[in-house]
Amino acid sequence: MEQKIQAKNLDEQRFGRVLPHVSVDCVIFGFHENQLRVLLLRLRSIQEWSLPGGRLFPDESLDDAAHRVLKERTGLQNIFLKQFYAFGDRHRMDNTDFHGILAKQGIQLDPSHVLFDRTISVGYYALVEFSQVTPGLDILTEEWRWWDVREAPVMLFDHNEIMSAALKTLRRQLRYDPVGLNLLPEKFTMPELQKLYETILGKTLDRRNFQKRLLGYGILKRLEERRLGGAHKSPYLYCFDREQYFKALESGLEHEW
Amino acid sequence: MEQKIQAKNLDEQRFGRVLPHVSVDCVIFGFHENQLRVLLLRLRSIQEWSLPGGRLFPDESLDDAAHRVLKERTGLQNIFLKQFYAFGDRHRMDNTDFHGILAKQGIQLDPSHVLFDRTISVGYYALVEFSQVTPGLDILTEEWRWWDVREAPVMLFDHNEIMSAALKTLRRQLRYDPVGLNLLPEKFTMPELQKLYETILGKTLDRRNFQKRLLGYGILKRLEERRLGGAHKSPYLYCFDREQYFKALESGLEHEW
Repeated sequence: MEQKIQAKNLDEQRFGRVLPHVSVDCVIFGFHENQLRVLLLRLRSIQEWSLPGGRLFPDESLDDAAHRVLKERTGLQNIFLKQFYAFGDRHRMDNTDFHGILAKQGIQLDPSHVLFDRTISVGYYALVEFSQVTPGLDILTEEWRWWDVREAPVMLFDHNEIMSAALKTLRRQLRYDPVGLNLLPEKFTMPELQKLYETILGKTLDRRNFQKRLLGYGILKRLEERRLGGAHKSPYLYCFDREQYFKALESGLEHEW
Repeated sequence: MEQKIQAKNLDEQRFGRVLPHVSVDCVIFGFHENQLRVLLLRLRSIQEWSLPGGRLFPDESLDDAAHRVLKERTGLQNIFLKQFYAFGDRHRMDNTDFHGILAKQGIQLDPSHVLFDRTISVGYYALVEFSQVTPGLDILTEEWRWWDVREAPVMLFDHNEIMSAALKTLRRQLRYDPVGLNLLPEKFTMPELQKLYETILGKTLDRRNFQKRLLGYGILKRLEERRLGGAHKSPYLYCFDREQYFKALESGLEHEW
């Protein structure tokens, strides 16, 4: 009962004054020890999972809404979110009885409520080191989980499609932008870096070509130290050349014209 | 007077049933004889220019709305529009008295009309051969013009920012995607192709590096013919290898990982 009242307050507080027809959804990819995962939420009383998403307040910019929604729903803050696509298919919500879902949560909204109107969702994504961040739960949510991207469950609305599009964008990003800072330890070996790429891409890469290409980008510094103790020849340690790394983040890895 | 009545009908027909809070704006770049231009409209009775844009109908997908709006406002059809960014700043419309502008056009709408609500606009862009397309005018518009992108006028709302973002996306696209089919004649010289790139980028490029890089993409076929009649050594003619071109459009110019 208390839960119901809380939910009702939440409803009045939040859903009463959100902008109709627009939402944001966040695809938070997590990397840790050669695993690529995605952060999904499960609402109370239902089986389906969903991306952390939500509505804009009338006076809120789109980017601010994405950061606030992510924080409210998962507790995550200071995440570098990147907008990647606006999902506006007419039928993107047709597969989900959202009214029924909210009713199960004790939230009784009129079927004409803006929350059930046709909505365009703007997708944001981020890649974080998932052992470094600890999600929390909002009142609507029963469970959060880092799912292996290869084993993501069926989600509400078009969230599977949004996740796939974000993954495609992330993989494309590997060709054009530097990736790895904050995901790898400060010093790492070339095989460790390669493993990061392979994990995101979901496939194995040729060792020589990978090394040649990465070194060609000029964002790595080879250290004089080697990683000791392995069964094989001790590999060199590398770190990112932070100045070059951030320069490449700005302008892309490929040469400007 | 007739004009006023027409506009009023249009208002009732269209503005009465559009989705609030969401719009689309189209940045149509035109290339012709080494000029890069952008298609802008000027509404009746006002001085400011704007991008061709408009609203979604409640039952219309985002992409469909972009195509319909472009067709209604400029007559352009079968244009390959690419979504590139959703503009959602809270203050993006603050610099424009849209109510006053419509009033000048004889369109009297209540200040609480959805058209004046805070709106997120999804940007689309395209690059066309501008001598091949002939824009028309809708009833709201007094004038259309292909503006040199370097001399674009001050526009309504945040349309200058939207145009700049589209131009940045187009220039970025030059590094990752093949460009040129439908913009150049079927057979062209390397200097002509280079001029296309230089025009889009707004700067001159090194001839040798350009040739090396473009040939490296594998999307060009050198023909046995040469362009005759010039003052200099007759240059070879090239055409696009359409199979490779479309393959690269799909997967990007750079090697997949």
